[in-house]
Amino acid sequence: MTDIKNYIQANKDRFLEELYGLLRIPSISSESAHKPDMLRAAEYWKEQLLKAGADRAEVMPTEGNPVVYGEKIVAPGAKTVLVYGHYDVMPVDPVELWKTSPFEPQIIGDRLYARGANDDKGQSFMHAKAFEYLVRENALPCNVKFMLEGEEEIGSPSLGKWCQENKKMLEADVILVSDTSMIAPDVPSVTVGLRGLSYVEVCVTGPNKDLHSGLFGGAVANPANVLAKLVADLIDEKGHVTVPGFYDDVVEVSAEERAAMAKAPFDEVAYKAALDIAKVSGEEGYSTIERTGIRPSLDVNGIWSGYTGEGAKTVLPATAHAKISMRLVPNQDWEKIGRQVAECLQARAPESVKVEVKLLHGGWPYGADLKSEAYKAAEAAYMDVYGKLPIPTRSGGSIPIIATFEQVLGIKSLLMGFGLEADAIHSPNESYLLENFFKGIETIVAFYRHYGA
Amino acid sequence: MTDIKNYIQANKDRFLEELYGLLRIPSISSESAHKPDMLRAAEYWKEQLLKAGADRAEVMPTEGNPVVYGEKIVAPGAKTVLVYGHYDVMPVDPVELWKTSPFEPQIIGDRLYARGANDDKGQSFMHAKAFEYLVRENALPCNVKFMLEGEEEIGSPSLGKWCQENKKMLEADVILVSDTSMIAPDVPSVTVGLRGLSYVEVCVTGPNKDLHSGLFGGAVANPANVLAKLVADLIDEKGHVTVPGFYDDVVEVSAEERAAMAKAPFDEVAYKAALDIAKVSGEEGYSTIERTGIRPSLDVNGIWSGYTGEGAKTVLPATAHAKISMRLVPNQDWEKIGRQVAECLQARAPESVKVEVKLLHGGWPYGADLKSEAYKAAEAAYMDVYGKLPIPTRSGGSIPIIATFEQVLGIKSLLMGFGLEADAIHSPNESYLLENFFKGIETIVAFYRHYGA
Repeated sequence: MTDIKNYIQANKDRFLEELYGLLRIPSISSESAHKPDMLRAAEYWKEQLLKAGADRAEVMPTEGNPVVYGEKIVAPGAKTVLVYGHYDVMPVDPVELWKTSPFEPQIIGDRLYARGANDDKGQSFMHAKAFEYLVRENALPCNVKFMLEGEEEIGSPSLGKWCQENKKMLEADVILVSDTSMIAPDVPSVTVGLRGLSYVEVCVTGPNKDLHSGLFGGAVANPANVLAKLVADLIDEKGHVTVPGFYDDVVEVSAEERAAMAKAPFDEVAYKAALDIAKVSGEEGYSTIERTGIRPSLDVNGIWSGYTGEGAKTVLPATAHAKISMRLVPNQDWEKIGRQVAECLQARAPESVKVEVKLLHGGWPYGADLKSEAYKAAEAAYMDVYGKLPIPTRSGGSIPIIATFEQVLGIKSLLMGFGLEADAIHSPNESYLLENFFKGIETIVAFYRHYGA
Repeated sequence: MTDIKNYIQANKDRFLEELYGLLRIPSISSESAHKPDMLRAAEYWKEQLLKAGADRAEVMPTEGNPVVYGEKIVAPGAKTVLVYGHYDVMPVDPVELWKTSPFEPQIIGDRLYARGANDDKGQSFMHAKAFEYLVRENALPCNVKFMLEGEEEIGSPSLGKWCQENKKMLEADVILVSDTSMIAPDVPSVTVGLRGLSYVEVCVTGPNKDLHSGLFGGAVANPANVLAKLVADLIDEKGHVTVPGFYDDVVEVSAEERAAMAKAPFDEVAYKAALDIAKVSGEEGYSTIERTGIRPSLDVNGIWSGYTGEGAKTVLPATAHAKISMRLVPNQDWEKIGRQVAECLQARAPESVKVEVKLLHGGWPYGADLKSEAYKAAEAAYMDVYGKLPIPTRSGGSIPIIATFEQVLGIKSLLMGFGLEADAIHSPNESYLLENFFKGIETIVAFYRHYGA
């Protein structure tokens, strides 16, 4: 039998070429102009699954973008692993900050640059290649099912319903996901907690048209000033979110668990240097890792009003807009939080303007089971490939669908992520360390061996 | 001699066609792409002045857009009127809110719609036509000089120097300007006070790239949240600007003058209905007219950061920007105010971000002389045409160059404006009441007769 290392070495260029084919499709789910690209990306995945050795694969419609489903059943009684990934990507703006064309993958140094190189095309594609190896070597010890969606970056609005409708087909013992990060190239970790998300859009309307700021300035409430005040008041001087009820459902993490978390390596000097900031910032009484791992947060994701072009325009704008999202921790309910934020903004708005708040989307937070067979198999796999146990970490990011899987399918997920902070996912110049792509394939193969044994 | 009313009646369509020619040129001074249009507009004005009867007219270069100068000297000893106007216009965005094409003038009902229909192409063009009439009738009682600039909407950066260099050529007894409003079609007014302007652009920089708001949200200062707080803190609960020293140079208006101002007609119910707002808003202790006339103010003219497109993007933006302007009253120094605002924002910014403030432009406030011969002639002219004296008002707007004229040329200005609040200058669907265009021409003719008598 060919060793996985040798197999990768022999097929490296083909693996990358196949991944490039996927990366070249601009499957941006939040922009409706890219609708045809979603279908192209789904079809591409289907072909890849069939080539890799799936018994069947198909592009299945949903109310939104289709889901690609594929499977290989080795034995009815064998354990079943359901691989989840997503073929949609984030928008690329500000596109002028990209050093390479976002949809023309390019290797520079030891990294592959492209939108989706990591999130999640690069990471999910490792699973196709690990699967291919085990099939070709006739060594697949489990049944494997693949489920790739095209709406992760917009909150997976259709996948929950699709899972409900295909519950039987999706039966599995564990859901395997690579869509998170690890601590460092030589410090593997498994994500055991994910924050939830509640995302709202606020529109403040003042006068019925843009006004001349000289003729009206000082006498008519300016929606941009009002919005700035509403936004500013959402967080107090101590970094606490001021929305009434915001922390009501948060489960405080025990001092013991916080002490354990504090053992994870964290270099604040390097962290600040990497981001070029003079100071970290956040909720008083919590460390940086705690602020993103165990505490909810509130961020403006976008704000716009008035004249934003070159030069000066003395306008008092008619409207002002903001996109605001809250990251949530286990036990917080994203719809409730969205409502609380909306009610709070409405209540605080002065009579001189109208405020509208739309709940754009959201997702539940998630906590994993560190005592499961799957988690143990993952530990053994990382030990094989990296020579050390993975550190259990909590990610500040959200994969809202992970909580949905548990609710709808009753299956826990295992988050074996091979991304790094430096990969700049969601930003210009997203990249993926080639070493992690190949070691990820190795680790996944090792996982199957331990889990299926 | 033809009566001016008859002359207008006979030449109405030609007057409008000639004005359309000017309105069709998209001479937006704040957008560098429109540079060639600035020259086209200047050349057009030159031709119009020559056709109207100027002895000479030329397009004179400046460091920025050219100035159109023209003159007719009837007698060396006669009084000299220097007409000032501007051929540049504001940007047209949001262009989707226009009901007509902004640079294709169109009459709907009793109004002419186009960018610049009022500000200032329509208003300045009345002077060309009043001049034409008096020349053709051989009845011009004064020397007339024209000076039309192309940078008014960006703060007239070149005109002061150009005036300095052409001081001799520009000698005059009064500068006549139509670039302001009157109270109502049947309530003429002359603007005797103008606010100054100090316009800054703020850039808040946080991390060196856009970040994933899940992975970093709560631990890294978000420039959009920081900017919102900085902006919100510039105005307190009572509507006072909180920038240290902001009110130091403001001359408080006497109780007597405030009582006189209170006699000007103002219908708050109609004002609110026209703007579709439930409540006026501003500095405590002042009326709406006072808030825009005798008090300085601060407005966000534009704000932008992060993702502003369709749908949701969970980004923690690297930068956030705002355009902020202060309207100033007599005795306030715009450069000093700009510096104070910049220092205040720097001082208040948290260590976790960098703040840059650029002073984009500004202009001095202005107060007129109600006892001058020119003001008396204007009163008589309005009496002739409207059957009533004009009300002296203070405009909240800025024409920064008016103060410069006084400083550089030593000449006071007379602001005979025929605009109306409903004209929506600087906004989509700018228009000009045709009645005011024609009555303005009549009033200007009457002014020359009284002033030159």
